[in-house]
Amino acid sequence: MILKNNLLLEAARGGPVNRPPVWLMRQAGRVLPEYRAVRKKVKNFRELVTTPELAAEVTIQPVDILGVDAAIIFSDILVIPEAMGLPYEMIEEKGPVFRKTVRGEEDIEKLEIAAGDNLRYVTDAIRIVKKELNGRVPLIGFAGAPWTILAYMVEGHGSKTFSEARKFLYTCPDSAHRLLGKIAKSTVNYLKSQVDAGADILQLFDSWAGILSPAQYASFAFPYLRDIGKEMKLYSPSTPLTVFAKGAFFSVKDFGQTDYDVIGLDWNMDIGGSRVLAGKNKTLQGNMDPALLYADYETIRKETRKMLEAFGKERYIANLGHGLYPDTDKDKVKFFVDVIKGEV
Amino acid sequence: MILKNNLLLEAARGGPVNRPPVWLMRQAGRVLPEYRAVRKKVKNFRELVTTPELAAEVTIQPVDILGVDAAIIFSDILVIPEAMGLPYEMIEEKGPVFRKTVRGEEDIEKLEIAAGDNLRYVTDAIRIVKKELNGRVPLIGFAGAPWTILAYMVEGHGSKTFSEARKFLYTCPDSAHRLLGKIAKSTVNYLKSQVDAGADILQLFDSWAGILSPAQYASFAFPYLRDIGKEMKLYSPSTPLTVFAKGAFFSVKDFGQTDYDVIGLDWNMDIGGSRVLAGKNKTLQGNMDPALLYADYETIRKETRKMLEAFGKERYIANLGHGLYPDTDKDKVKFFVDVIKGEV
Repeated sequence: MILKNNLLLEAARGGPVNRPPVWLMRQAGRVLPEYRAVRKKVKNFRELVTTPELAAEVTIQPVDILGVDAAIIFSDILVIPEAMGLPYEMIEEKGPVFRKTVRGEEDIEKLEIAAGDNLRYVTDAIRIVKKELNGRVPLIGFAGAPWTILAYMVEGHGSKTFSEARKFLYTCPDSAHRLLGKIAKSTVNYLKSQVDAGADILQLFDSWAGILSPAQYASFAFPYLRDIGKEMKLYSPSTPLTVFAKGAFFSVKDFGQTDYDVIGLDWNMDIGGSRVLAGKNKTLQGNMDPALLYADYETIRKETRKMLEAFGKERYIANLGHGLYPDTDKDKVKFFVDVIKGEV
Repeated sequence: MILKNNLLLEAARGGPVNRPPVWLMRQAGRVLPEYRAVRKKVKNFRELVTTPELAAEVTIQPVDILGVDAAIIFSDILVIPEAMGLPYEMIEEKGPVFRKTVRGEEDIEKLEIAAGDNLRYVTDAIRIVKKELNGRVPLIGFAGAPWTILAYMVEGHGSKTFSEARKFLYTCPDSAHRLLGKIAKSTVNYLKSQVDAGADILQLFDSWAGILSPAQYASFAFPYLRDIGKEMKLYSPSTPLTVFAKGAFFSVKDFGQTDYDVIGLDWNMDIGGSRVLAGKNKTLQGNMDPALLYADYETIRKETRKMLEAFGKERYIANLGHGLYPDTDKDKVKFFVDVIKGEV
């Protein structure tokens, strides 16, 4: 199907664009009253994620309401641990909690390699979204990066330091590599099934990249992401790939040498410097501080324009440097999008 | 009083040393069974902080037990908000919680400028420590950086994103500056009283530096730290000053232009690159990943030696890149110290 709005894919591939495309991490979520209404219909977050019709509905909401240039499938990076045998619950105000965690070799042995089948509810949702979007904008598929998934599997919940997970890397490095290998295989299967279902571009989220030292990142995180990129590029050369390693400012140069087309930046990362590190064959994505959207309209306009100028029009996808904060005013989110689109 | 072990001050000032001095953030704390025994005698953390004899006792413990080259006064950065009128409680496993928070101009108006007097229990503890140490090693005094203190005052508790505090910067920038000014004044009074009581070197902790964008850091954090450095240098030119802006890798160059003698690095920051950014008239401090101390002895030795080599012997103070994790094995902490001292 030919996309009516192809800006995101063009920018990812380095083609010419009239203006940078824009979408927002967590655009399908609590920031929209329309999302909250759907959320109320189900008993928990998991039910929303695993019900394809509802997941599809909230995926499309921001395209209609905010006018963004892409939809991103409504899901969670933790569907992978679940498909491998570690189910999670999402506790309101607290985040994910796992009943079982990985503590050693035996636990790793028991984990299954997730196949596309285990995650049918996601690919079903993708098919519905693609049909309903009817080519209006591209659809982004995604998965967590192996290190971030390991971090949750070992720690069992969110954490400021993930010291249990980092302890695991230092105390059981071989087991960690075995676990990362299993996660990476599951992730590749999962991403392939997303492409088959119709995802137009894929993003890998390494949300906890920034708590590893550069040396640990180079050993336990980067190689798995690099290899996933390579494998996905072979599988579907026309599907652009994005990597977002939050906090890992030291990794931009290395990702510049991989098969990823797009490198996501958080709001700490210097725009000009990152361009140099990434190299001119990569597209950058980001990186506004999500807290900016708490400011008044004039400040939002001024800071957004400053960001646009710093990135330049070529090889750039406008976004935040992290997910939207749930208590952000929807009108200000839309205003941010409109400033990028040159409409206000 | 002449110090028998003057390594820390010599390294801070850039003088010649036989080996780099070493101390550890959170060396006086739960990692030591001897600390936990003292902690059991009191009903809460606050009581330990505010009882000079006990605070002095746990301050000296790591000098005796771990053989570090400095003591750091046992206290908390949150004594400043408390002295200004916002008391906190330290909840086990959760961290600090404030009953009242700062929400607007009126709350800021009500805050007092802390004087040395409000914090007499700290300076009393310093006097006891100095007497009991009897010149064995120098004593480090410290305070939180204004931005980090503001973050707690507004947010009211620890947070992964401190989005309330960051919202405050974007929505009430003038109030934020007024609050930061009051905190900075309180901090200078507090640090002066620490010097008067006998602190040999001072460290400013900007624990939440890394969640601000470089532009926000330049506006709301750096100038207050710079000015505190300037004022303290005028007050006591012979007292070395250290700044540790955790996560603010982008700030090293700017701190290189200030009155701080020592710049602390976290474990994400590149050692060689930081040397260049800081300039050759600054001493660097850090930066081992505290999770390394979960590893086996051979790994600890190997990685520690790698760190020592990367920093070089001159203008270097060995430390971790963050505080010790409480569940670290005391023997491994001591081993880390001994490797640095060249004793194992």
